[in-house]
Amino acid sequence: MRIVVLTGGIGGARFLLGVRAHARAIGADVTAVVNVGDDVRMHGLQICPDLDSVMYTLGGAADPERGWGRVGETWVVKEELAKYGVEPSWFGLGDKDTATHLVRTTMLNAGYPLSAVTAALCERWQPGITVLPASDDRLETHVVVDVDGERKAIHFQEWWVRYRGELPTHRFVFRGAESAKPAAGVLDAIAAADVVLIAPSNPVVSIAPILAVPPLREAVANGPAPVVGVSPIIGGAPVRGMADRCLATLEVEVSAGAVGRMYGPRAEGGLLDGWLVDESDAGAEVPGVRTRAVPLWMRDEVATARMVEDALELGGVS
Amino acid sequence: MRIVVLTGGIGGARFLLGVRAHARAIGADVTAVVNVGDDVRMHGLQICPDLDSVMYTLGGAADPERGWGRVGETWVVKEELAKYGVEPSWFGLGDKDTATHLVRTTMLNAGYPLSAVTAALCERWQPGITVLPASDDRLETHVVVDVDGERKAIHFQEWWVRYRGELPTHRFVFRGAESAKPAAGVLDAIAAADVVLIAPSNPVVSIAPILAVPPLREAVANGPAPVVGVSPIIGGAPVRGMADRCLATLEVEVSAGAVGRMYGPRAEGGLLDGWLVDESDAGAEVPGVRTRAVPLWMRDEVATARMVEDALELGGVS
Repeated sequence: MRIVVLTGGIGGARFLLGVRAHARAIGADVTAVVNVGDDVRMHGLQICPDLDSVMYTLGGAADPERGWGRVGETWVVKEELAKYGVEPSWFGLGDKDTATHLVRTTMLNAGYPLSAVTAALCERWQPGITVLPASDDRLETHVVVDVDGERKAIHFQEWWVRYRGELPTHRFVFRGAESAKPAAGVLDAIAAADVVLIAPSNPVVSIAPILAVPPLREAVANGPAPVVGVSPIIGGAPVRGMADRCLATLEVEVSAGAVGRMYGPRAEGGLLDGWLVDESDAGAEVPGVRTRAVPLWMRDEVATARMVEDALELGGVS
Repeated sequence: MRIVVLTGGIGGARFLLGVRAHARAIGADVTAVVNVGDDVRMHGLQICPDLDSVMYTLGGAADPERGWGRVGETWVVKEELAKYGVEPSWFGLGDKDTATHLVRTTMLNAGYPLSAVTAALCERWQPGITVLPASDDRLETHVVVDVDGERKAIHFQEWWVRYRGELPTHRFVFRGAESAKPAAGVLDAIAAADVVLIAPSNPVVSIAPILAVPPLREAVANGPAPVVGVSPIIGGAPVRGMADRCLATLEVEVSAGAVGRMYGPRAEGGLLDGWLVDESDAGAEVPGVRTRAVPLWMRDEVATARMVEDALELGGVS
C-alpha cells in the first residue's frame, strides 16, 4: 500500500510518527508532502521549518519540550548575531539548526532543487519515509496585518514567532503559489497513492499553502486515491498552535465540522472522502463526506498509529 | 601623525596592539591594511581570517591560547556539519565565528564591498584604528603542491590548516591580484601617511598578497612616506607560524637579513627605508636599507609599543 500525507507544522510531524509506525506494521510505503510556506531566508540562510520538523522528529532528534528544533540545542550563533545588532533577532536560530541551514543553503545556491537537498539531508536523518517539499519553487506565506498603524504584508514567521499572531490580521497570501510547480516526485506519488491523508495540521497555514499549488490540488482533488483528513480541532480548540487565530481570520468557526466543511466534499469540488474527528466531536456535520469519531489525541506513537489505522479504514483501504 | 600598517596573520594582529598603544601615547592615527589572500568561502560563508584576527585581537575577544578565533568559542556548528558529512571538515569554524561570517556574507551578498562590511563589523569591536582590507576584489592565495601524486593548486587555508604546510610545495599564487584594485580608502591612507610600517607578519603569505595588488605596491614603493619593516624572523626562525616553510619554497634563507633583502631597498625598486631586526640579528645585512637591532619579542603590549617607537625612530618620524 502507498500512503501520501499532506503535512506541515509540529502536529503534522508527530502525526507522521504514527503513519510510519502503522505503515511498518502493514508493510506500506509513505511519502510526506510537506508545506514550504513557512520557509524563509534569514541571515542568508534558507530555513525550512516544516521540513526540518519532519526530519528531526522522524530522525529522533527533535526537542520534545519545545516542539520545534533540535534536542540539546545551543544558541551561540543567535546571541552573537544579536550582539552585532543585525535583524531579525526574534527568530530561534539554534547552532545545530544553523548547520542544517548551511548545508541546505550551500546546496540550493549550487543549483540543487529543494527536493534533492531534502533527500541529501535525509541521508543523515533516515526518516524511514520519503520526504518531499510541496514545491521546489519559492512559495512563502505572507500575512496582511496592521502593525504600528500601517497595513502591510509580513512573512508568516514574523507573524507567528515575533508577534505570536497578536496583530489585527486580514488575510494570508501564498506568494508564488500560483506559478509554483509541485516538487519532483510529488505528482507521481499522488498518482500512485492508494490513499491520501491530510494530517491534523493547521488547515490555514500548513495545509492550504500546499494546496495553493494548482497542479498539486488538482492531483489530490481529482486523483484516483481516496482522501481522508484528520481534524486538527478537538472540542472547539486546536490541539496545538494557533489554528484558532488563523481560522478566525478566515471567519471560519473553530470546530471539527467547520474545518471539514472548509476542505469540502470531493463531489462538490472539495478534497475529502473521509473526515476523522475526535470522539468529543462525534456530531460534526460535513455533508457529502464520511465522518467517523475516534480518539484523536496523539498521546504517543501507538495512539497515533491507531488514528492512522482508523483513517485508512475510513478511506476504505485498510 | 598618520601611521599605515601592512599586516596579516596573528603576529600582525598582535603587532597592531603595540601600534595602537604607541599611537594613543603620541596622538597618532592608525590605518591597518589587512591581507585578504587567506579569505575563503566555506559552507557558503565568506571567511576572512586576517581581518577577523585584527578585529578580535583589538576588540579584546581573541583566544589568547589558540591565537586565532574567539575566546570562549564553541564548536556545535562544525560538529553538526561533520555529521552531515559535508566538506571541508578540517576548518576550524567556531559558533561565534559563524555569526561573524553570516553577517559578513549577508552584507557581501547584498552588494556591500568588503571594506564597508568590515567597517560595519568594527562598530561592534571598536578596534580604535581604521581597519581596511587590502582589496574589495576577490584575491585568494593558492598553493601549487604535490598531493596524492598529483600536482595541483589548493587554497592557502587547505595548505595551512589541513596539511600544516607538509606537502611538496612549489609556489604561491595570488589569484586575482593582478586585476584587483586597492579597497576604498587604502590609496588615500597611504598617500596621507607619515610612515608605512610592514608588520612582522609572514612575508610570503601575509604581506606579499597585499603587495601583489599593483597600485597598492606602487603607492607604498613610490609614496612620500618612509617605509619601515619589522622582521618576522628572530635568530633564524619565525616567531610564530610557518614563515620558514614559506621562505623555503621561495628558496629564501630563513634569516632577518634575507627577508629584509627580499623586500629590498626603495632605491632599487624595493620597499624599505628601514628594517628593524632583533638584537640577536644585529649583524643582518640589507644593503641600501637602514637597519637597527632592538628587542623584537612581542611579549606584551608595552614591549610591542616600544618596538613601534623604535620603528618610527628608524623611519625618522618619531
